[in-house]
Amino acid sequence: MDTAEFRRRGKEMVDYIADYLESIEQRQVYPDVQPGYLRSLIPEEAPEQPDSYEDVVRDIERVIMPGVTHWHSPYFYAYYSTGNSYPSLLADMLSAAIGCVGFSWAASPACTELETVMLDWLGKMLNLPEDFLAGTAGQGGGVIQGTASEATIVALLAARSRTVRQIQAQSPEHTEMDIISKLVAYSSDQAHSSVEKAGLIAGVRMRKVATDEKFAVRGETFSVMLEEDKRKGLIPFYFCATLGTTPSCAFDCLTELGPICNAEKIWMHIDAAYAGSAFICPEFRPLLNGVEFADSFNFNPHKWLLVHFDCSAMWVRRRSDIIRAFKTDALYLNHDHQDSGLITDYRHWQIPMGSRFRSLKLWFVFRLYGLKGLQAHIRKHVLLAKEFERRVREDQRFEISADVVLGLVCFRLKGSNELNETLLKRINSARKIHLVPCQLAGRFVLRFAVCARSTESHHVQEAWAHIAEIASELMQDLQH
Amino acid sequence: MDTAEFRRRGKEMVDYIADYLESIEQRQVYPDVQPGYLRSLIPEEAPEQPDSYEDVVRDIERVIMPGVTHWHSPYFYAYYSTGNSYPSLLADMLSAAIGCVGFSWAASPACTELETVMLDWLGKMLNLPEDFLAGTAGQGGGVIQGTASEATIVALLAARSRTVRQIQAQSPEHTEMDIISKLVAYSSDQAHSSVEKAGLIAGVRMRKVATDEKFAVRGETFSVMLEEDKRKGLIPFYFCATLGTTPSCAFDCLTELGPICNAEKIWMHIDAAYAGSAFICPEFRPLLNGVEFADSFNFNPHKWLLVHFDCSAMWVRRRSDIIRAFKTDALYLNHDHQDSGLITDYRHWQIPMGSRFRSLKLWFVFRLYGLKGLQAHIRKHVLLAKEFERRVREDQRFEISADVVLGLVCFRLKGSNELNETLLKRINSARKIHLVPCQLAGRFVLRFAVCARSTESHHVQEAWAHIAEIASELMQDLQH
Ligand SMILES: Cc1ncc(COP(=O)(O)O)c(C=O)c1O
Ligand SMILES: Cc1ncc(COP(=O)(O)O)c(C=O)c1O
Repeated sequence: MDTAEFRRRGKEMVDYIADYLESIEQRQVYPDVQPGYLRSLIPEEAPEQPDSYEDVVRDIERVIMPGVTHWHSPYFYAYYSTGNSYPSLLADMLSAAIGCVGFSWAASPACTELETVMLDWLGKMLNLPEDFLAGTAGQGGGVIQGTASEATIVALLAARSRTVRQIQAQSPEHTEMDIISKLVAYSSDQAHSSVEKAGLIAGVRMRKVATDEKFAVRGETFSVMLEEDKRKGLIPFYFCATLGTTPSCAFDCLTELGPICNAEKIWMHIDAAYAGSAFICPEFRPLLNGVEFADSFNFNPHKWLLVHFDCSAMWVRRRSDIIRAFKTDALYLNHDHQDSGLITDYRHWQIPMGSRFRSLKLWFVFRLYGLKGLQAHIRKHVLLAKEFERRVREDQRFEISADVVLGLVCFRLKGSNELNETLLKRINSARKIHLVPCQLAGRFVLRFAVCARSTESHHVQEAWAHIAEIASELMQDLQH
Repeated sequence: MDTAEFRRRGKEMVDYIADYLESIEQRQVYPDVQPGYLRSLIPEEAPEQPDSYEDVVRDIERVIMPGVTHWHSPYFYAYYSTGNSYPSLLADMLSAAIGCVGFSWAASPACTELETVMLDWLGKMLNLPEDFLAGTAGQGGGVIQGTASEATIVALLAARSRTVRQIQAQSPEHTEMDIISKLVAYSSDQAHSSVEKAGLIAGVRMRKVATDEKFAVRGETFSVMLEEDKRKGLIPFYFCATLGTTPSCAFDCLTELGPICNAEKIWMHIDAAYAGSAFICPEFRPLLNGVEFADSFNFNPHKWLLVHFDCSAMWVRRRSDIIRAFKTDALYLNHDHQDSGLITDYRHWQIPMGSRFRSLKLWFVFRLYGLKGLQAHIRKHVLLAKEFERRVREDQRFEISADVVLGLVCFRLKGSNELNETLLKRINSARKIHLVPCQLAGRFVLRFAVCARSTESHHVQEAWAHIAEIASELMQDLQH
């Protein structure tokens, strides 16, 4: 394909994408395909000679689309939202074309520097403590990780190496392996599965702290656990607090936990993967109070800030903590400025060596929505969730299972777990909308997460009417 | 920005990208900017109200381009190539628009299934042992990792947990921590820095095996090291072999190393990040001989197979090894088919939970180039490297520092390291071409890696003439 053909095909692809997103609600939100469907639709091997472009494009509708779960459909209410917007798509086209690999400042200065400055912009939108920003007298700064999972691991590894260094500074006779074998990391029992996985990867013990009736970790419970572990000779070193848990969007009590972590020299990392985007609205910013105690903070613009996957924003209070956990070097990666103190080599901040030019997505989205536009997006989703909550509360058969703080509503039929499992199964089988469940205090609960950028009040009303109707049918069937 | 505006802006962006790539050689390959250049060019905060699209686009040339290292310029000969092609760009536009997050089969069946089948296609192109393919009676299969760095870690973690399980099965009294503290992982002293980093992340001891005069690890050296470590009570468990090392594109001797690893129950992972793409050509496939001893194999289509970053192809001999290293679960991730044995939930195969729909890039590129087109691309780069090698050999002042097997030429002026450092500095300061160095057996060496898709013979000739001229000037300056 030469440049002239790319001009033509690229423009056709822009139209295909525009058509797809414009008419997405006419597609069935969740596919009907059975496992293994795709293999039989295409050849067993790559072609020797090129296929025609027309054939490839035809196969998008024949092979791909029948198996797509449409995350951007206004009938998609599963998991949490994943971001998408036209400015983000445009920026990523540019990023792919530049196609630099950002592992050092020299590998593409613009890629590194825009990342640093965009994280400062975003930090200011969130009103993060100045320490976390790069363009200040502090020692902190931001980085774009691929995902929240990676941010959790990076923070855990930084904490692990900081703790080893601190202990060895006082008692040089302890080997690294000795110390690591005594470390304990903590998180809420509501924490995302990626936190447990981070512990598995780093090879450290991981304990889950029980949550209160609002599914939040409280200082008291945590303190008791710490004392117990210290009596056993273990070394608490890392706490991953969650703001906006995946099951129910609960908030660990940072203002209680932060001082404990600081006093015990425990690294406090905050995972606000979903909820973090909301903190750009002054009315939701109090949910972030206590961040001043944290060593690192992370959330996913790729979830709720109109930026598409992947783009997870992470800040650390001390750059040196994170860099020292990973630093490896090789001559072919050296460059003139590397020890100048003036530049950032992001390969020391992340698990992969390189990364795409992801800050372009932030730059386009911030500029083309403006802070006001982004706030409007968040507020609209929260209002839609509240609207759904109201409908649930009006129906005596249902109950709300957790406080509705942002864009997620946890609800269930008053009744058994089996009843609710059947309800969910029927809802998802009908294929009109798509939801996933969670477990809260032993209860099977349905999650209604407002996800798509294009979700409007009428979609939510329609979704509720549909759920209520399926519930009625279910009740009737059960009476027979 | 509404859909109508996206149609317009998207098409403008396609033209911008086409113009950029078409005229890339007119841009200076390496930027002149100083550290911190970008911050002063843009506001300190995100705008409250949206900026105009015209302003954003204008800023691409004003703010971004002056700081870009142009990896796709035919004057870029640094590091190793990073992939780029029009079919890959088109596929990624589609991937971004679909915007699903691939963590389970249900999250988007097409995303999971195309990945599995494309890795089978690619495995067949490489003539991998059948065991590694998913659509066979074997227990293996492929996955797209973001980067080779991640593949190395994933393999190491799978090896770690397999070894712990095997030892505990025989001696249940050993704790996991005990076992891990005795593990040793190995790689070539020429291995990429990401291998050392993998050891840091997993918290295991890592040793480098000395290489022979061709910069390859040999069986004999490895055996001696193993015996030594076992005598010390350590447990060898992982060997990362490199095919195509980063400094000089050397090849560890798999046919010697593989049987040793198999006999010692050491997980052999193969990192062929750059060189792997060449194995689609029958004449280069012998370089992969010995893969039949491996537990996992990885290379980067995003380096040399015309697919843009990130897309790293990894195969494992036994799916269960990799899944058991990471498996964590949560109700909100469950789906009907998950325990059916029919589907793959890729979150258990990778460090992040989710990933983009990256297999679309492979599908478009394989189909629109065909195997023949991809082979032609590899062969052209190898021929260009040979052409450069010939020029170096014809000039008595220079020497070739390592066998030229694929698209990389390692060369230097006969003389001191200082002399060669000065030569490189002058070449890079002239800004006409861009190279990076390496160290080989204590010598400072220049690396000339054929990188861009659009590099032609006349670019290579021009680059050589330029280098030879700078060398002459340098010699002259030294005489005065
Ligand atoms: C609280 C929380 N943490 C982490 C994650 C994982 O995010 P990512 O896919 O970016 O790793 C999620 C995803 O829903 C989440 O809700
Ligand atoms: C041999 C080798 N391994 C690993 C890598 C790292 O690749 P990635 O950026 O995909 O992690 C490179 C990069 O040049 C390499 O040459």
